[in-house]
Amino acid sequence: MAEATSAPIKVIYDTDPGIDDAMALLFLEYAPSIDLVGITTVLGNASIDTTTRNALYMKQLFNLAAPVARGAGRPLAVPMVEEPHYIHGHNGLGDVPIPETLSVKEHELPAHRFIIDMVRKHPHEIVIVAVGRMTNLALALREDPGIAELVKEVVIMGGAFGFYGHSGNVTPVAEANIIGDPHAADEMFAAKWPVVAVGLDVTQECVMTTAYMEQLRDKGGKAGQFCWDISRFYEDFYRRATGIDGIFVHDSSAVAYLIDPSLFTTRSGPIKVVTEGIAIGQTIQKSALRSFPPSAWDGLPDQKICTAVDGQRFLDLYFDTIVKGAAERA
Amino acid sequence: MAEATSAPIKVIYDTDPGIDDAMALLFLEYAPSIDLVGITTVLGNASIDTTTRNALYMKQLFNLAAPVARGAGRPLAVPMVEEPHYIHGHNGLGDVPIPETLSVKEHELPAHRFIIDMVRKHPHEIVIVAVGRMTNLALALREDPGIAELVKEVVIMGGAFGFYGHSGNVTPVAEANIIGDPHAADEMFAAKWPVVAVGLDVTQECVMTTAYMEQLRDKGGKAGQFCWDISRFYEDFYRRATGIDGIFVHDSSAVAYLIDPSLFTTRSGPIKVVTEGIAIGQTIQKSALRSFPPSAWDGLPDQKICTAVDGQRFLDLYFDTIVKGAAERA
Repeated sequence: MAEATSAPIKVIYDTDPGIDDAMALLFLEYAPSIDLVGITTVLGNASIDTTTRNALYMKQLFNLAAPVARGAGRPLAVPMVEEPHYIHGHNGLGDVPIPETLSVKEHELPAHRFIIDMVRKHPHEIVIVAVGRMTNLALALREDPGIAELVKEVVIMGGAFGFYGHSGNVTPVAEANIIGDPHAADEMFAAKWPVVAVGLDVTQECVMTTAYMEQLRDKGGKAGQFCWDISRFYEDFYRRATGIDGIFVHDSSAVAYLIDPSLFTTRSGPIKVVTEGIAIGQTIQKSALRSFPPSAWDGLPDQKICTAVDGQRFLDLYFDTIVKGAAERA
Repeated sequence: MAEATSAPIKVIYDTDPGIDDAMALLFLEYAPSIDLVGITTVLGNASIDTTTRNALYMKQLFNLAAPVARGAGRPLAVPMVEEPHYIHGHNGLGDVPIPETLSVKEHELPAHRFIIDMVRKHPHEIVIVAVGRMTNLALALREDPGIAELVKEVVIMGGAFGFYGHSGNVTPVAEANIIGDPHAADEMFAAKWPVVAVGLDVTQECVMTTAYMEQLRDKGGKAGQFCWDISRFYEDFYRRATGIDGIFVHDSSAVAYLIDPSLFTTRSGPIKVVTEGIAIGQTIQKSALRSFPPSAWDGLPDQKICTAVDGQRFLDLYFDTIVKGAAERA
């Protein structure tokens, strides 16, 4: 991992915790090169009440400085679908016990206004790491389109671009964060801010095995133990759904891109999201490698997708960051 | 290449010649393991008048025994689009001179009835190799759904399934034969006959270079010279559109699968075609490797797609078949 030689990157973390969201939150908090300046919540892995409560619980448990701003509780246009409980558990954190009352409070602004406010206060400095549905980002863009040119970068976990025969995880072509609000994702990709999409093509190339998680638990202090506890439920789901022995590392992959982009190979081109029909929720990038007749992608900004990852270096980066961060805070 | 030890496979070749269609027709005609019992034409690389004329020209020029039955001149439901002339030339065969009048005549049946007739006459014996739009096949199924269970196999050149980052060739996700009549393709994949889709994922893995084509011209007799002549225009297109030095070998890949399936790796699962929106014409297979919530793919028959090809062995097979076939007929 490269040492941070310049000022840490100011990050707003837009999230729906969610087990892998919580693990990625600790990754952001403990990374020396990152200054986590806000956490915005969105529905997704659980309802907005639950994801917001979980973010606040993390803030309290790990004494996070970043405020938590509550975001969208429903998608822009597609019908609201009851969240499945068999992936992240009924409480969104693998059903580990969570206290009924918390001592920390939500920020007074709703998520999309918090984003606008922070971007205007810190022009060209804020990176948004978005690992849930893109609803808050779309709402912020709709209210203040000018922020697009003031955001340093948007790194999302989302999409499936078909590399390596990887498919979607909700339909054969759609990934959960995108199909959960396809219109929001399409607006987010169309905005003139630089987006990097870290999709299933790479997140499913990395597995934190049970053995890896045991090491993290034993050496990662309170954070490591927490990651272990919340991921037991998640591991069971993956064993049943995919047959892997361990968990895919979706959201932390977006954080890893931010910390060390050299872990990833990328491809550039405009991206559109399918908003109707059987392919709804699919992310489609028009590669610059081939010419096509006039199409819906014309005139859109080039955005990056990740097409390959150095999985072992990424796993080492996560492990070392958590262990070192936990030791410094012990 | 495996020697034909049993009776040759009866093949109906559904085609829109087209340069690579013509090259694949010679491959079928010269393969000892294949008995070409009919040629059915469809619009696509050129108008139905042109593709039918070209099939008849091939029949005359190479003294083909197979009858030529004229097929659909327009897609089932999508609007008729003027064919581009920059790929196959104005006459569909790279603008080589073609005589104004031909001595051979069309079969009296339209293509879809010819297919029904042949399948009913030779139950469980006919393989349909379809390398244009799937319109004739859909019309045959609509008129006589019972043929599906009587066809031995359907091998198509069509679709793009996203392997190796390959995209479509008309849009980022759609391949020409499928987007040309997406409804017909969807009906064809849904029928209870065994389909093998040989898509861009593999056809774009094989390039017949200029050097290869020179060898074919010099050693392949009349057929080799003809392939060289018609492919000059096609090669120019590919050089401009993709930067490759040579031509992709789309239609002959489907023939290669029929002659020697061991050249290909396949994946099984139900396939649907997107019939609206920006992803129109996309072929989507639901892989059995992962479980999904209930979806549009449920209840459809498993069909095969090709995910990898042994390109050199395929190129050798084509070359040897043409050279040997030409020598026997010289």
